[in-house]
Amino acid sequence: MGGVPPLTTAEAEKLRAGTPAWRLTHQGANLQRRFDFPDFKTVLTFVNRIGAIAEEEGHHPDIAFGWGYCVVELYTHKIKGLHENDFIMAAKIDALMNEFGS
Amino acid sequence: MGGVPPLTTAEAEKLRAGTPAWRLTHQGANLQRRFDFPDFKTVLTFVNRIGAIAEEEGHHPDIAFGWGYCVVELYTHKIKGLHENDFIMAAKIDALMNEFGS
Repeated sequence: MGGVPPLTTAEAEKLRAGTPAWRLTHQGANLQRRFDFPDFKTVLTFVNRIGAIAEEEGHHPDIAFGWGYCVVELYTHKIKGLHENDFIMAAKIDALMNEFGS
Repeated sequence: MGGVPPLTTAEAEKLRAGTPAWRLTHQGANLQRRFDFPDFKTVLTFVNRIGAIAEEEGHHPDIAFGWGYCVVELYTHKIKGLHENDFIMAAKIDALMNEFGS
């Protein structure tokens, strides 16, 4: 991924059509989604499932969580912006969320 | 905890002597510490251990983490500020960090 430039905001917006629950932040350099849950335990389970995907993909999001919520931020450090892989990761996390029932 | 006022900054600073690696943020309303680790897996293990303490104590911090780092923020929602319990929790997390070897 080192040699490619980050996606432009226009390119990112086009890919975002496949993961519309995510929003672009940091002038289009990051992709973020918030997830809400009824308790802490479910949040922690969800966070661990994301962690497993991250390890499989070798691509690690930034995650902020606490009682009842989790905010996931995707970004490709090597290119200081978004790569198509961030959208693949977002789609995998969306599919995971579907398993959690909302 | 509902009936007591939050700690004043002076009171919080006094208690902070017992957990000096933590700093007061948000005008003394929160207690925060950053932890660094050599990889993602160790961060996730650490986060889960904090989660177990949080469930035991019935007191849930806000945690932000990603590859190699974890930032823990303590705060008592009911009183919109710090309670002595936040410092007890901070001490428990410090003890946990000692197990991780730094």
